[in-house]
Amino acid sequence: MSRKLFTVGPVNVADDTLKAMDRPMITHRSKEYKQLHADIEEKLHKTLGTDNDIFMVAGSATVLLEGSARNAIAKHSLGLTSGSFGDRSIEVATSNGKQVDVVKVPMGKAVKPADIAGKVTKDIEAVHWVSNESSTGVYCDSVALAKEVRDQNPDSLVMIDAVTSMFAMDLKFKDVQPDSVVFGTQKALALPPGLAFVVVSPELMKKSEKMENKGFYTDYVKLKEKNDENYALTTPPVSLMYGVDYQLDKMLKEGMATRYRRHQEMADMVRKWADERMQGVFPEEGYRSNTIGVIKRGDLDFDKFHSIIKSKGMEISNGYGDIKKSTFRIGHMGDLTKDDIKQLLSVMDEALEEMKQ
Amino acid sequence: MSRKLFTVGPVNVADDTLKAMDRPMITHRSKEYKQLHADIEEKLHKTLGTDNDIFMVAGSATVLLEGSARNAIAKHSLGLTSGSFGDRSIEVATSNGKQVDVVKVPMGKAVKPADIAGKVTKDIEAVHWVSNESSTGVYCDSVALAKEVRDQNPDSLVMIDAVTSMFAMDLKFKDVQPDSVVFGTQKALALPPGLAFVVVSPELMKKSEKMENKGFYTDYVKLKEKNDENYALTTPPVSLMYGVDYQLDKMLKEGMATRYRRHQEMADMVRKWADERMQGVFPEEGYRSNTIGVIKRGDLDFDKFHSIIKSKGMEISNGYGDIKKSTFRIGHMGDLTKDDIKQLLSVMDEALEEMKQ
Repeated sequence: MSRKLFTVGPVNVADDTLKAMDRPMITHRSKEYKQLHADIEEKLHKTLGTDNDIFMVAGSATVLLEGSARNAIAKHSLGLTSGSFGDRSIEVATSNGKQVDVVKVPMGKAVKPADIAGKVTKDIEAVHWVSNESSTGVYCDSVALAKEVRDQNPDSLVMIDAVTSMFAMDLKFKDVQPDSVVFGTQKALALPPGLAFVVVSPELMKKSEKMENKGFYTDYVKLKEKNDENYALTTPPVSLMYGVDYQLDKMLKEGMATRYRRHQEMADMVRKWADERMQGVFPEEGYRSNTIGVIKRGDLDFDKFHSIIKSKGMEISNGYGDIKKSTFRIGHMGDLTKDDIKQLLSVMDEALEEMKQ
Repeated sequence: MSRKLFTVGPVNVADDTLKAMDRPMITHRSKEYKQLHADIEEKLHKTLGTDNDIFMVAGSATVLLEGSARNAIAKHSLGLTSGSFGDRSIEVATSNGKQVDVVKVPMGKAVKPADIAGKVTKDIEAVHWVSNESSTGVYCDSVALAKEVRDQNPDSLVMIDAVTSMFAMDLKFKDVQPDSVVFGTQKALALPPGLAFVVVSPELMKKSEKMENKGFYTDYVKLKEKNDENYALTTPPVSLMYGVDYQLDKMLKEGMATRYRRHQEMADMVRKWADERMQGVFPEEGYRSNTIGVIKRGDLDFDKFHSIIKSKGMEISNGYGDIKKSTFRIGHMGDLTKDDIKQLLSVMDEALEEMKQ
């Protein structure tokens, strides 16, 4: 049975988008491919507000989190975490033989500049964090964190996992000046999973040129060489690229400011519901995600609650990691609207009513 | 304009297959996903004739060639090559810091057991080669090579890149007993690119358990842990998995023996045309691919020839690497039939006629 997804990702893909992907294959050595590749790069620059290089690679975003770790860190980095995906991004670096100092704050809190005071020493080649922690719904202030990193060590690179925030909340490229930003198709781009992106700075590229043992698939120097000709290094997922091109047009038409506001408004609706019907949202005030509502569920029987919601044609997400049993999550990325959220909230109200009977 | 692809990959994707992929998203933590994952694994075991673990990862096949190099080789391997893709598979290992001894034979020739005599010494942890070299159209005898490797060093792992042969020519799993076989969706599975597979032996898994610095995305121990529960380690490309499931059903219905014969017959037709109209096919007798015809073109003006073919709604591939200017290539994988080849050959005849005028 087909259900409308209010999950943390993969997210709902609209019918018109699925159709846009349903075009005959072209080979990735053709002129048509070069045009498609160039168009996407140009639209990404426009929507994100950056001129930095953007590489596309077949894979889930994790492959490029690994890529950035291998291209930018020879030995030693600082990893910030406040939840499961922050923990994972540190594991990605350590599993590649990097030594990672860790700053961990309690779940529900955001890492703040004061938490990294004195920690970005001269040998810290990069500091990396998750923009929007999907397990707790915490959105950290990347502008403030990047400033603190540079104040302590101007040579340290800033690397951000923006998987569940990009295109839904403004990362403020001009203020952050990130060296690496990674995201994928299956979140706020509202496409099926399978294509990963990284936006890289000239400083990171300089570092990559001298890096050893960085592998082939995500060697940023090799990727740039091909990208400069609008080609891919290895076979790209062409049908997803049709979808990206289509979704970026949709975004440019909507306007990014309008888009960011829409996500803010959807988040406000979910938070209000959480305050009225549950025990509020989990993350601390001022650091709340506009794409994922993590709701404190108290003694709610989530399995029963969710099976009623599913029977009404919708799906949300369970809690994740250490707070799996005390929270549940509502994702509202991509093309979802306030009307969709209104519909979901009224279905959740019905479910609560039915559970009382 | 839509053209029928007789390219080396991505290959033609049939309309019914595109439609099968055009289904609503499911999340990769749902029961529906587990069922899809399990179904695909079971059908892969049936079609390939092996019980070994099979991992699926979002990416092009190169990501898993890199994965096998990182999971199986601590220091030292032997790489066999007779063309561009053999060269690349060696580069994949060296760029990950492995020391690779190289056996290189002239293009058009296959690497044979005699070429590796005395070279699989005790410290060679793995020997790797390309089953079907896409630049030259050479198909090597993996049964004979694997036997020679084991005769010299029973502990050396056998790792095969089967990107353009799997599902079109019989790899003979029972005779080869390969430790790693890598392939993707965009060749003989006749799907868009974006999903990579690796079939791994228990011996390779044992090696991986002790391997350091093998990364996260393609850590085979982590992949197995999830795969055993029919889950993916990182977000899988669900829409492509719909397509894989659909294509494997098609294959089981056709029967593998019939399928392999169909590819043999298409290859025979192309070779006959090459003998009659051009200077024959490039690879040596007895080692010719059944999925890619590499044709010696003499003084044919390929650009003109190909633009006529394109104007008639078809597309073939240029030569590749060092023999780019002396050959061209015809791919016939996946769902293409003898009737399709007949149509292509008659269009190529027309093009030759037009060029005489």
